[in-house]
Amino acid sequence: MGFVREIAFATTAKEQLVDITGRLQELVTELQLKEGFVCVYVPHTSAAVSIHREVDVTDRPKLDEMLESINPDKEAPHYTKAALVAPTEVLIVKDGKLVMDPDQRIYFYEFDGPKQRRVIVYLTD
Amino acid sequence: MGFVREIAFATTAKEQLVDITGRLQELVTELQLKEGFVCVYVPHTSAAVSIHREVDVTDRPKLDEMLESINPDKEAPHYTKAALVAPTEVLIVKDGKLVMDPDQRIYFYEFDGPKQRRVIVYLTD
Amino acid sequence: MGFVREIAFATTAKEQLVDITGRLQELVTELQLKEGFVCVYVPHTSAAVSIHREVDVTDRPKLDEMLESINPDKEAPHYTKAALVAPTEVLIVKDGKLVMDPDQRIYFYEFDGPKQRRVIVYLTD
Repeated sequence: MGFVREIAFATTAKEQLVDITGRLQELVTELQLKEGFVCVYVPHTSAAVSIHREVDVTDRPKLDEMLESINPDKEAPHYTKAALVAPTEVLIVKDGKLVMDPDQRIYFYEFDGPKQRRVIVYLTD
Repeated sequence: MGFVREIAFATTAKEQLVDITGRLQELVTELQLKEGFVCVYVPHTSAAVSIHREVDVTDRPKLDEMLESINPDKEAPHYTKAALVAPTEVLIVKDGKLVMDPDQRIYFYEFDGPKQRRVIVYLTD
Repeated sequence: MGFVREIAFATTAKEQLVDITGRLQELVTELQLKEGFVCVYVPHTSAAVSIHREVDVTDRPKLDEMLESINPDKEAPHYTKAALVAPTEVLIVKDGKLVMDPDQRIYFYEFDGPKQRRVIVYLTD
């Protein structure tokens, strides 16, 4: 059956990147998962999750710039951006650690903050 | 091992959104899955799946508009669109329900209908 | 708990598509997985994975063309492309086979080769 857990936090700006890599590794460690699979789900229509190179989160995120430049709907774009970045990610655990490039980070994308947000996490047992 | 199930339906237009959220929740209920993980796979090269805010499906989907505007290949774009929207989604179940925002829906994207289509679903036991 | 395996290979060009469908089916066969779920993860910041119609890999990939045309950052785009294509895919196994359209293939996207690369694979037991 595995485990379902939740990560909760507040965003502080209209558009914001929140690095949740550490919070996810903590869940893996707490549940003593040695080898397995992790699914991350964002239950919000104006937020998303993406894994990519570490970026300076005080900068405007590059992925968001791309979405901005191609978005034809200037009046209500946050949910379209959220759909294109997507609300899910999957990860693999080996030897008790999330298998990732040292430069990869898992980012929560806020497109309509500030808001109270949560991320749902499934981990195999 | 989990369960593998199939949802079958016919699309009726060249480009169409089909809301499959209810069909997926029915599978979760039938299999009495209380807590776990669901994977959705579209075994077609000109269709895809995406989770986002509920939209008026009689309207042209917003995500599709974005893809249209950026697509450099005007002659055979349906498989490129399908690749960018992607053929997979993952979901988490808690207390017997798909964990989602009340406004999130799971949409099958048809890019080359009308056709007989199917969606493959894996659910943990 | 499932199984964690690795596929390793070298890319030979700056941008390149590598069809890894056969290597993934071999893993399913070796582990005698009859019915279940497979997760593919690319632990690199300038590479990605995508499932779409078989393409002539000596051609410039169509998905990459789309990304090129919309990318506002011409100086260091490889990690932005990698983020948009995404480092993960999920697949379903039935009767010992990856459930796919006969024309679907699983492609590793190299955006900054040539490099030694690996793909991490989780398979249910």
